[in-house]
Amino acid sequence: MENTKQNIVIIGGMATGCKTAARLKRIKPDFDVTIIEKNPFVSYGTCGMPYFASGEVDGFFDLAKTSWGTVRDAEYFKKAKDINVLTETIVERIDYENKQVECLNIMDGNRFSLPFDKIVISTGAKARKPPFPVPDSDKISTFHNPMDAKKFRDYAQTGKISKAVIIGGGFIGCELAESLVNLWGIETHLVELENRLLPTALDKEMSLFLEKTFSNTGINLHLSSKVEKVNLNGSGNPVVHFFNGKIIESDYVFLCVGIEPEVELARSIGIKIGDKGSIVADSQMKTNLENVWAGGDCVEVKSRVTGKPELFPFGSLANRQGRVIADSIAGLKSEFKGAAGAISLKVFGLIIASCGLTKEQANNNGINAGEVWGSWHDRPDYHPDSKSLFGKMLYEKGTMKLLGLQLAGRGEVTRYIDVFSALISKGVTAQDLLNFEHAYTPPHSSPLNPLNSLGAMAESQEEGLCALNPLLHEQYEGNILDIREPVEIGSDELGKEAKEFPIMEYREKLAEFEKNKSLLIICQKGPRSYEAARTFVNEGFTDVMYLGGGLQFAKTVLDDEE
Amino acid sequence: MENTKQNIVIIGGMATGCKTAARLKRIKPDFDVTIIEKNPFVSYGTCGMPYFASGEVDGFFDLAKTSWGTVRDAEYFKKAKDINVLTETIVERIDYENKQVECLNIMDGNRFSLPFDKIVISTGAKARKPPFPVPDSDKISTFHNPMDAKKFRDYAQTGKISKAVIIGGGFIGCELAESLVNLWGIETHLVELENRLLPTALDKEMSLFLEKTFSNTGINLHLSSKVEKVNLNGSGNPVVHFFNGKIIESDYVFLCVGIEPEVELARSIGIKIGDKGSIVADSQMKTNLENVWAGGDCVEVKSRVTGKPELFPFGSLANRQGRVIADSIAGLKSEFKGAAGAISLKVFGLIIASCGLTKEQANNNGINAGEVWGSWHDRPDYHPDSKSLFGKMLYEKGTMKLLGLQLAGRGEVTRYIDVFSALISKGVTAQDLLNFEHAYTPPHSSPLNPLNSLGAMAESQEEGLCALNPLLHEQYEGNILDIREPVEIGSDELGKEAKEFPIMEYREKLAEFEKNKSLLIICQKGPRSYEAARTFVNEGFTDVMYLGGGLQFAKTVLDDEE
Repeated sequence: MENTKQNIVIIGGMATGCKTAARLKRIKPDFDVTIIEKNPFVSYGTCGMPYFASGEVDGFFDLAKTSWGTVRDAEYFKKAKDINVLTETIVERIDYENKQVECLNIMDGNRFSLPFDKIVISTGAKARKPPFPVPDSDKISTFHNPMDAKKFRDYAQTGKISKAVIIGGGFIGCELAESLVNLWGIETHLVELENRLLPTALDKEMSLFLEKTFSNTGINLHLSSKVEKVNLNGSGNPVVHFFNGKIIESDYVFLCVGIEPEVELARSIGIKIGDKGSIVADSQMKTNLENVWAGGDCVEVKSRVTGKPELFPFGSLANRQGRVIADSIAGLKSEFKGAAGAISLKVFGLIIASCGLTKEQANNNGINAGEVWGSWHDRPDYHPDSKSLFGKMLYEKGTMKLLGLQLAGRGEVTRYIDVFSALISKGVTAQDLLNFEHAYTPPHSSPLNPLNSLGAMAESQEEGLCALNPLLHEQYEGNILDIREPVEIGSDELGKEAKEFPIMEYREKLAEFEKNKSLLIICQKGPRSYEAARTFVNEGFTDVMYLGGGLQFAKTVLDDEE
Repeated sequence: MENTKQNIVIIGGMATGCKTAARLKRIKPDFDVTIIEKNPFVSYGTCGMPYFASGEVDGFFDLAKTSWGTVRDAEYFKKAKDINVLTETIVERIDYENKQVECLNIMDGNRFSLPFDKIVISTGAKARKPPFPVPDSDKISTFHNPMDAKKFRDYAQTGKISKAVIIGGGFIGCELAESLVNLWGIETHLVELENRLLPTALDKEMSLFLEKTFSNTGINLHLSSKVEKVNLNGSGNPVVHFFNGKIIESDYVFLCVGIEPEVELARSIGIKIGDKGSIVADSQMKTNLENVWAGGDCVEVKSRVTGKPELFPFGSLANRQGRVIADSIAGLKSEFKGAAGAISLKVFGLIIASCGLTKEQANNNGINAGEVWGSWHDRPDYHPDSKSLFGKMLYEKGTMKLLGLQLAGRGEVTRYIDVFSALISKGVTAQDLLNFEHAYTPPHSSPLNPLNSLGAMAESQEEGLCALNPLLHEQYEGNILDIREPVEIGSDELGKEAKEFPIMEYREKLAEFEKNKSLLIICQKGPRSYEAARTFVNEGFTDVMYLGGGLQFAKTVLDDEE
């Protein structure tokens, strides 16, 4: 461990920078630590911006407060932690050879140099420039900086926004859409280039839960919609033009087309930039240059699923990287081992959570992914708080290694993503899910949890008992056995030819089916058809599938679709 | 895999028995599978009994229904699964040599024999006989069988119970206490021999959260209270007598003093019984006798923490054991790897969850356990749904192996116990918690989660920065530094001599403290005093502690205690 006094300069005062500084001062109190930040504030909760924009969080500084109500400003950092914070200051140049950063105070125009022994680049990310022309306008904005949120909120409070367009259906776009509708009553249009919302986290059949929730709350979705340009009409209001000829006029346009790593400063001194456009750092967050560390949204992260570099611009990871950087600078052994990409979103009471790869991402990585679907109650059926839970799991065929999980529900959702994240980091297989022991109590869970169930389905699938993607059941062309009870079917017919034998009868009717014809078995939530499918396979039927997640899954996402 | 037709007899038709039968018939459709059950029903949700007793769950058969509303009765098992179920039937004797079970139908008195090739003993557990005299009375009951719940509910509906005593403060006793108060408005007395509720799952400082919640809702707690006897008064109402001379008269007494494994039948044929009084089975759930498997509450389970046998009478484990038994009988490879004892309880909105060892259990196992405490918001402070969360973690000193976690809160609690359970099964250390990646979103979590925080505290503690048990802070006799802000202290003084320097000032006052005297640093939730303690240690102070979980923890459990 080096013990001499050193100058540490940290460029960027968000999660990574502040965490690095705080931990480093705790371990190495003699080090001189300075954070340089271009904004007027450091260490605010970016992820809280949608709640500030909506008015749910009152004052902006609430996002930058400690839990005891102190604003984390320069004075706080100096007095409480003996850390120097220079806000509203940009680094114009790093003189790597002479170990100096050349700074500009953007308020008073003063230029000055700071010497460093070691430097941390935590410059974060910036809003991506849209791939279509956009005019300058007060009525068009990104949603990346706190000022963006403030600009919108101030304007919204005047009551002049009755219709808005959000371009980009990622996490920020979706959270913002909820805010606009829920708290400001604004007619909201959400535009996404891909065929689904949250395309990096969800496959289509899972994003449909979100899309239906949005549609039901009056949000206008424009999926698979490529914007050609945005311009202004005669009244100066923005107009979004699509390549398919459609146009939407509105009072405000948000550009939420993603972020890109802020790496110009790093690039300028020869720091290695990876294929994803982010800084390459090792597991101690060291760059290729001696004495230079990097962390946060400007750095690529190793996927714990594929082992390849990915972009995971999450505050929680930035924070952990800060800890590792501090340890590494102090000479302690500490490692950032990558990420599984666990993420969740809550809009209109619906919780969507995801971890690992989607089917599309597995395909792009050349991984042969098996898929299983489930539909459960998150508590025992008899419990009054019981809520539906839907999910999809991906695993690697053959090895059964866990690849990804996507869940949607209104109750117990995030816990299973968290567990999946913990397990994926240990490289376990779908069969290991059978042994996962949750804290069972009827107000919060059933005796068997969804991960146990998905593990069992994956195991059966590897043994030849296949699930049909719920999106595909309407196109299915083989024979169909509907094993729901007559009382369940009621007037809720399948809408296509099917034999109807409930679970108590189908065993006596096996002779009515041809062994060599394709057979799809359908029930309400999955377990009955899964069990019956097993019986048919045991009887020598050669092409039997069950409907993944049952009709409950398929109907929730398919019925009354726009 | 054996393929000949075999007779499989399963004694006991609850979770293990029914799961074994169902899975075995799916894998081995030619096997003849019979379940023998002494009750009139099989496969009901025992854990739902408190909800039935309280009236939250309407009909008893709701507990035994499939999710599509069919009651799991003998006809259902025969027609849907081709499994024979004999209810209201007891096995009087197993003739192991001649491979026969001798049965008695308790309704019609018929005796008959069934041949078996393989046998599964899933006889469960029975209510433990109280270690004190109890008379026969309609007004005294265990709470173990569905009939107990029904008996109470029928009686409660007459309105004749205005005061009740529950003897035993374990999970069932606590759930029942909530039901009595919440739904029937009964004056409720809860009696526990140990000094705390849930003594097998919680240490005292954690059980206090539960005890305070109960006290606040009017439940009368009698801890460290040893019952001498129960008798009846002149009106035939039960009277509980304690060794300390106290007596409680009431209208109804519940005996919830625990359960004990039902192993007489197993013992009678020479099956090995362990020190805990349960059947010994290997990881395939095989007993020492060929062709005899056992699972469920009558079997001991290997602790995934200590490796030693323990009793974990949980429905979720029973279910998984059933799967393993079926696989083993069918010749498939499948293992039950033991349990960490993850469990949770929700009463009056408070969620208490636990996994692994308590401090007492660690001591009893000769493990040198380090302890850390935490006090958090379960979401960012700025989020309107943010709720307090309190916890305690135990790890093995030196190796830092995870030993146990106890959490209490009203929001996001069970997810972290589940993750801990998943990780403990992989044998990870407290340091690994730093890398646990949760699905961060402000409506459900903070960027750093409680497990990250506990991991960091454990790491610091191993480096010499010790936490003081929140229960001990009032007895502390060294110097005290209170680093809360003046506005936080307000009239909320510590009640003992302390220097008061807020976080922005204490660094300038270091000279006012003697380096060789004991120093305790106190703040509201922990992080500030943890950070300040680090500064004092860095400055050469030799005996510095911080108050584990902060004053928020200590005050929540200690203030206004009865």
